[in-house]
Amino acid sequence: MAKVLTSRKENYAQWYNDLVLKAGLAENSAVRGCMVIKPYGYAIWEKIQAQLDRMFKETGHENAYFPLFIPKSFFSKEADHVEGFAKECAVVTHYRLKNDEKGGVIVDPDAKLEEELIVRPTSETIIWNTYKNWIQSYRDLPILINQWANVVRWEMRTRLFLRTAEFLWQEGHTAHATRAEAIAETKQMIDVYATFAREHMAMPVIQGHKTENERFAGALDTLSIEAMMQDGKALQSGTSHFLGQNFAKAFDVKFADKTGKLEHVWATSWGVSTRLMGALIMAHSDDNGLVLPPKLAPIEVVIVPIYRNDEQYDTVCEKGEEIRKALLKKGISVKFDKRDTQKPGWKFAEYELKGVPLRLALGMRDIENGTIEVARRDTLTKEVMPMEGIEDVVDKLLVEIQDEIYNKALKFREDNIHYVDTWDEFVDTLENKGGFIMAHWDGTSETEQEIQTKTKASIRCIPFDNPQEEGKCVLTGKPSKERVIFAKAY
Amino acid sequence: MAKVLTSRKENYAQWYNDLVLKAGLAENSAVRGCMVIKPYGYAIWEKIQAQLDRMFKETGHENAYFPLFIPKSFFSKEADHVEGFAKECAVVTHYRLKNDEKGGVIVDPDAKLEEELIVRPTSETIIWNTYKNWIQSYRDLPILINQWANVVRWEMRTRLFLRTAEFLWQEGHTAHATRAEAIAETKQMIDVYATFAREHMAMPVIQGHKTENERFAGALDTLSIEAMMQDGKALQSGTSHFLGQNFAKAFDVKFADKTGKLEHVWATSWGVSTRLMGALIMAHSDDNGLVLPPKLAPIEVVIVPIYRNDEQYDTVCEKGEEIRKALLKKGISVKFDKRDTQKPGWKFAEYELKGVPLRLALGMRDIENGTIEVARRDTLTKEVMPMEGIEDVVDKLLVEIQDEIYNKALKFREDNIHYVDTWDEFVDTLENKGGFIMAHWDGTSETEQEIQTKTKASIRCIPFDNPQEEGKCVLTGKPSKERVIFAKAY
Repeated sequence: MAKVLTSRKENYAQWYNDLVLKAGLAENSAVRGCMVIKPYGYAIWEKIQAQLDRMFKETGHENAYFPLFIPKSFFSKEADHVEGFAKECAVVTHYRLKNDEKGGVIVDPDAKLEEELIVRPTSETIIWNTYKNWIQSYRDLPILINQWANVVRWEMRTRLFLRTAEFLWQEGHTAHATRAEAIAETKQMIDVYATFAREHMAMPVIQGHKTENERFAGALDTLSIEAMMQDGKALQSGTSHFLGQNFAKAFDVKFADKTGKLEHVWATSWGVSTRLMGALIMAHSDDNGLVLPPKLAPIEVVIVPIYRNDEQYDTVCEKGEEIRKALLKKGISVKFDKRDTQKPGWKFAEYELKGVPLRLALGMRDIENGTIEVARRDTLTKEVMPMEGIEDVVDKLLVEIQDEIYNKALKFREDNIHYVDTWDEFVDTLENKGGFIMAHWDGTSETEQEIQTKTKASIRCIPFDNPQEEGKCVLTGKPSKERVIFAKAY
Repeated sequence: MAKVLTSRKENYAQWYNDLVLKAGLAENSAVRGCMVIKPYGYAIWEKIQAQLDRMFKETGHENAYFPLFIPKSFFSKEADHVEGFAKECAVVTHYRLKNDEKGGVIVDPDAKLEEELIVRPTSETIIWNTYKNWIQSYRDLPILINQWANVVRWEMRTRLFLRTAEFLWQEGHTAHATRAEAIAETKQMIDVYATFAREHMAMPVIQGHKTENERFAGALDTLSIEAMMQDGKALQSGTSHFLGQNFAKAFDVKFADKTGKLEHVWATSWGVSTRLMGALIMAHSDDNGLVLPPKLAPIEVVIVPIYRNDEQYDTVCEKGEEIRKALLKKGISVKFDKRDTQKPGWKFAEYELKGVPLRLALGMRDIENGTIEVARRDTLTKEVMPMEGIEDVVDKLLVEIQDEIYNKALKFREDNIHYVDTWDEFVDTLENKGGFIMAHWDGTSETEQEIQTKTKASIRCIPFDNPQEEGKCVLTGKPSKERVIFAKAY
């Protein structure tokens, strides 16, 4: 088979782009920066959504829907938020088109909005403006709401899934009576994201606090999960923000506590997006195509029949159909590719490209011997196995594959975390090894900024339960009490 | 209990609005014409989505996602489409805000888009511009894709769920090699909608063809399902369009058939929206609140404990918990409202307002007698029943309620279909009886328009398998071969 992808070694960025296109996940659209998510890519996103939605509901959250548009003035209400968000946005200024003389359409100058509307880049402002009417007393709290929605941030340099002008996401917005409860919610949701990343995406993540520089605009604390991609770069995969009373103050949201005293409400927000698709792809895939963890694979097993003539086709298909049903009965999502228009070799390559975790090939000799060929996508190994009870073997194998994909990614990450104590080492490691660098930092935004300007590496997070140790800042030599994670990031 | 709703008789429109607000389904937002869908309303929408999504997948469709924005020029490409759609739209003209001197934000005049972007009112144009790259040969067909998305149409007079500037919907967009296949798809999807309306919404619908006047902009034929609301007005609840080759020609989408000949592709599109929520509410609910068919009720059964003191509370709750588990085991969605902060009477009214199909009340006497009180929301009747095996009784009752809600709506509709042969009768029936009027029509758009101008009644549809009979147009007296359905409509 001719290779359809640029190899990772040759050009990692090109490999990623090739893979997204060739595996039929997404493509660029006619609108700058906006992508089309194709059916196979969307099917993976649906699996991500379904699992996260389950986890949100298990932790007591409900879904709701808030407007796409936000009045411009809302952004000015929270000072930090406007700085961070109201800049690169899609602005709606008119509400009507009209015909021109040439048979085209033009914007009707008479249909100018009094106040411009911003296509939501995130929904804190419109939601807190709504919560104001929902909250009077402590009895109305907590409010635990999530929204699945599209948002728009006018990015200049875009990459499929990783950074697009429009993207899909979920945003949780909760309101609480106490600071402690809001902090606990912030932590709970970053834990939900970490569990999801590990158990479903098979992707190890480090949880921690963002530095002040990297905090969400309007938050008192931002927690994140950080994953390592195969090029050693970090990908922030989810964030959970403790917003304090900032938005409650900006939108004047108060509640009467049990004693009747009025207090501002405490808030959190948290989100993950279609960026997770980028993380999933880059964490596991190889030069032959996607590698999907079984739990997020739209097709877990594909059966390919091997035959020379119509009679063989019928015989093999009959057996294949039996196996398909046995797998279905076990709750395994299986595709039996009986198409007579494509050769087995073409099918093998196609499902390899699409990352189907297991491939079963079934020919006449198998039927005579009572065997079947089982090929694993993650290891690219194959083995002839007894056909009898193959559904149980497949069931176990899928669990094994899920675990081994995780372990492989974990080992890769562990192998690429470097403890560094001097500036020369820092620069050399970044240049020649990549990965995550554990180094001391003097705790100032200036130093963080200077390191980033010099090396393009930023502080990804200060991990939870970070070991405390005396040290010296890798740039300034000033005293430090803990190492933080530096890395180049997506 | 004080009535919380205006009665239907007093003011139907006000009753509807009261109900949507008081039952916690939706409310108006700070953005003109855009609604907030509240958790309880969204939970019903999620049930609608889940079932429709299942039915779309069973008929071979896949989901995908296309951009929110459409370049302005795309609308000019299909002549009828631009007339129908590109007028009342949200237009994005700029992509950046900047700070002004007063601490607010203004639109940055330097960030003007070269070509304005329209927030999608429907996605035919952007999708067919995409399909152009996906289709070369007959092997690439059919394409059977659906999208769940938000759309925006700048409506001047809005009503929650029924007509809002932004709404949620699904839009199917399919591409076919032959005219016959596209027509079959158009029909299949209106059948899916009709089945969904009947079996899940418990709402009878009439399927038929729209007249030319009422056709989708760019379609050769529009099929619809029409339901009768309790005020006798019609509500168009779903449409399926046969688009012919119009969009393929506008976007130059051709395929090579088996002989290598290039032909334009045939298209359909079909959609239902959050408008279905309005239909669901208006079809069944009463002056006490929502009446939900069990299949779409977020909570099918609520259990309310009745007690006088802590000891009784514990005893009743223990038994209630047993029943909850027994119902859950049957796959019934049940809420056990153990809250000690609200009285039973308050809870009864609350769940009546929210349309929970069955309420079980459980007190000390019930425990002594081995009984439980079962109250039906649809009939407002209650009955004391044996507690033993109550889960089986509930299971059967839910099926019965689903059926009876449908039958009640069907009877109401049958009672309000009037066969009318003269203009005086037509006007009199519309004014004094309402409902659907079966009348002859001469088949011209002019007459249809004149009738609508005179009476506000429009032709809802020409039903499938419509009996053919000789008659005279109710307005012009010209010859007609069949009756059509006239009604005032939402």
